[in-house]
Amino acid sequence: MTDALHTPVWQDLARSKRESVAAKIPEAWRLPSHITASFHENATLSVLDVPHTSGILTQQEIEITENYNATELVQLMRDRKLKSIELVTAFCKRAAVAQQCVNCLTEIMFEEAMDRARECDDYLEKEGRPIGPLHGLPISLKDSCNVKGVHATIGYVSFISHPPAAMNGMLVGILQAAGAVFHCKTNLPQTMMTADSHNNVFGRTLNPNNLSLTAGGSTGGEAALIAMKGSVLGVATDIAGSGRIPPLCCGISSIKPTASRIPFAGNVPPGRLGSPSGIIPVIGPCGRSVQDYELFLKTVITARPWEVDGNVLNVPWRMVQPCTQPLRFGLVRGCKERPLHPPIARALHTAATLLKSHGHTIVLLDEKVPDLYQAAILSAKNFLLDPEMTPLKYIQASGEPMIPSLPTAAVKELEGWKPSLEELWDMNIERMSICRKWHDILVGEKLDAVISCGYQATAVPHDTYGLPIYTVLQNLLNVSPMRHNCWQVLSARH
Amino acid sequence: MTDALHTPVWQDLARSKRESVAAKIPEAWRLPSHITASFHENATLSVLDVPHTSGILTQQEIEITENYNATELVQLMRDRKLKSIELVTAFCKRAAVAQQCVNCLTEIMFEEAMDRARECDDYLEKEGRPIGPLHGLPISLKDSCNVKGVHATIGYVSFISHPPAAMNGMLVGILQAAGAVFHCKTNLPQTMMTADSHNNVFGRTLNPNNLSLTAGGSTGGEAALIAMKGSVLGVATDIAGSGRIPPLCCGISSIKPTASRIPFAGNVPPGRLGSPSGIIPVIGPCGRSVQDYELFLKTVITARPWEVDGNVLNVPWRMVQPCTQPLRFGLVRGCKERPLHPPIARALHTAATLLKSHGHTIVLLDEKVPDLYQAAILSAKNFLLDPEMTPLKYIQASGEPMIPSLPTAAVKELEGWKPSLEELWDMNIERMSICRKWHDILVGEKLDAVISCGYQATAVPHDTYGLPIYTVLQNLLNVSPMRHNCWQVLSARH
Repeated sequence: MTDALHTPVWQDLARSKRESVAAKIPEAWRLPSHITASFHENATLSVLDVPHTSGILTQQEIEITENYNATELVQLMRDRKLKSIELVTAFCKRAAVAQQCVNCLTEIMFEEAMDRARECDDYLEKEGRPIGPLHGLPISLKDSCNVKGVHATIGYVSFISHPPAAMNGMLVGILQAAGAVFHCKTNLPQTMMTADSHNNVFGRTLNPNNLSLTAGGSTGGEAALIAMKGSVLGVATDIAGSGRIPPLCCGISSIKPTASRIPFAGNVPPGRLGSPSGIIPVIGPCGRSVQDYELFLKTVITARPWEVDGNVLNVPWRMVQPCTQPLRFGLVRGCKERPLHPPIARALHTAATLLKSHGHTIVLLDEKVPDLYQAAILSAKNFLLDPEMTPLKYIQASGEPMIPSLPTAAVKELEGWKPSLEELWDMNIERMSICRKWHDILVGEKLDAVISCGYQATAVPHDTYGLPIYTVLQNLLNVSPMRHNCWQVLSARH
Repeated sequence: MTDALHTPVWQDLARSKRESVAAKIPEAWRLPSHITASFHENATLSVLDVPHTSGILTQQEIEITENYNATELVQLMRDRKLKSIELVTAFCKRAAVAQQCVNCLTEIMFEEAMDRARECDDYLEKEGRPIGPLHGLPISLKDSCNVKGVHATIGYVSFISHPPAAMNGMLVGILQAAGAVFHCKTNLPQTMMTADSHNNVFGRTLNPNNLSLTAGGSTGGEAALIAMKGSVLGVATDIAGSGRIPPLCCGISSIKPTASRIPFAGNVPPGRLGSPSGIIPVIGPCGRSVQDYELFLKTVITARPWEVDGNVLNVPWRMVQPCTQPLRFGLVRGCKERPLHPPIARALHTAATLLKSHGHTIVLLDEKVPDLYQAAILSAKNFLLDPEMTPLKYIQASGEPMIPSLPTAAVKELEGWKPSLEELWDMNIERMSICRKWHDILVGEKLDAVISCGYQATAVPHDTYGLPIYTVLQNLLNVSPMRHNCWQVLSARH
């Protein structure tokens, strides 16, 4: 075919992009091919100890990547007990190893990060003070975060031809001004609307605990990287669970801030902008430590983010005092459409029992809350409001196929459903009704927080996650943390 | 016609409703008919001094209704220098006179108010402390505010058959718990979407400064009543200027809070609920004194309104210190489609000159800001998103005609325009673009506030107001006060 002679097919574009990223891993940090050959999506092995045993990291590098949270690492640098270049080199090495095990990275910025780390060290040396509260700290970024001069394909082959970002996203700019060092960007699903971080540009991210399981999505690259300890703190986005599903699959943690608290502006959108949906995407930290989320959120909110993103509420950081009185927790133990698997039911039971044994109150909400499954269907409608189906156009533009995960995230009840302005009014009424019922329960029962699961199961095999009904509820409600202080209680206690 | 024998025509329903309200004015508070005969919509006279000269109010009643703001009146009651029953009686009398001059009331609650005032006095006497920060203070309410046991027809004949409100609106409940006394509800336009407070149930509210001019809308009854000093503090709603247009027409003042700060839930909507528009209605105080707005807003926000209305942001009241440095004010002097009339241009010039003479900086924004007229057209589209045109249905349900003001509020550029989901996405992009441009100007120029007009002219003849392009901008932007502290600076200074 004549066209084939002139226009590269999508496979060539994707391969070329992957190779250019892979080339940024120094020779000395590469695992032998006989080892990497066993790392594939059908292998049931855990790769969590590969960085430790690979021989690529020094003993000190193993220790600083494994034994400290971000808050402690920043303190070590402020105390001149650790240099940023040492820390960043250690995490770059470990991220390189992680990438070879679980395919978690999109853009590699190791060289830029080490240059920046040396700048941080020089600054501290010359000025006698750190750049900011994140001085010298390596932070990993979901691929949709824009970093000036770096690509953000977000896994669409058709986006490979886009120029590198002309400027930082608003959050990236704030983190950088606070002293952060960005060492890599991480993988996500085609369209970002499914729970397998898989696309035709970078391939599939695997779960480091068991390569045959999903790493979750859409922030799956982050979760796999952080579980491998190739990063201590990352940036996740979330509109249905994207920032929480991967942590629960990979065994790290995260926090979903309330919408309009942390600046979202300047990210690359996977679909059309201007959605009239009442479910608003959020951005926030993921990692290993609640203390680190306080560091992250306090740093960002103290930087007056409303001055760079008009959508951010001008609300200062508030400290709450540690509670001295017993707390009241709601408990939701799942719904009939997605009953809890034994490990999840046990985890909830253990948590509730432990809290009760410490004098706190547990209020069972199973029979009181609005139907969780119906709320998830309503949420799914909110994500299907674009008559132009822009994400599909982005896929089709290059000729690449849809990833197998996407159809598994579809709601069977919505087959053939078309959005309309008329129905959108009714959808809003339904959303308001669900929010009001939850609000009345939270207030009426004087609850400090609600305990529930993020999913009915532990991590599942690739392409079988299905609907994120337990996580999307928080996006629909947008309750945490402005309305009920949930994480503020947490952060004050850690 | 047979039907006429059985079903009352809309005129009968409306007359009956009007008469039942009028009957609640005691005989002793009625003006002679030879005086009221001259109060009609074609008369050019001012009625501002009628309450003073009517002989209905005692000298003390004249003084307490004319010479104090709400904050001072509450203080007088706390100090036992004034009883609530004295205050409430005075304002009821004056509201009765105002009603006979300018037709500003819908529901009259004089008896209930005087009962409640006696309760307040008893409470203070027995408990030795006031009920709350609004102890014994009469407050007037726009008709759309729900008061338990009281009608809220909002001027639709078809709503006359609705039962009285089963419960208080959320804001009404908070004000009442703080000690407020409600003495009347006030007039508004059919549909609430035009600037003449005129409907077929209660008729037209006249401007007390000149009866042939509009009192503005949609909170016109409040503004006329407060200008007559028949109330010292009222409740207004605002989605395009409804809480600011009547004050500027009648010569009182008001403040438009940021959306989601003061609880809106529990009002009677003039149209369909569930709008996907990004322009959100707000509710707040109108009256005579910025000090009173601080009292009102601080009282409401301190009452934790997010516990009764899940749409309210959980953001505590913040005091700002009086500024000691010169401020920076933006100045917008109108747009070519609606050039300023000389008195408005002069007022802006006087304000800017005065501020400059006190060392503040004025930054001319005329050439920098996004087109005001286009922003108003975009806003109008946001108000036309209901494919069912529910307000029209509410009108047609009784057979009543449309008021003459309504067609004058239509945007000629939108004749025949039909809303669509597809265009709504583009409308949101346009709104976001306008917001971003304003945001960048406010931040880039380091502005503390922007000075502009609320309308191109002073109050105009009935049914000629047209588009509220200078007020709707603030609803579209939703900037004050969370984003830029405008009123917080004001309130700390007064």
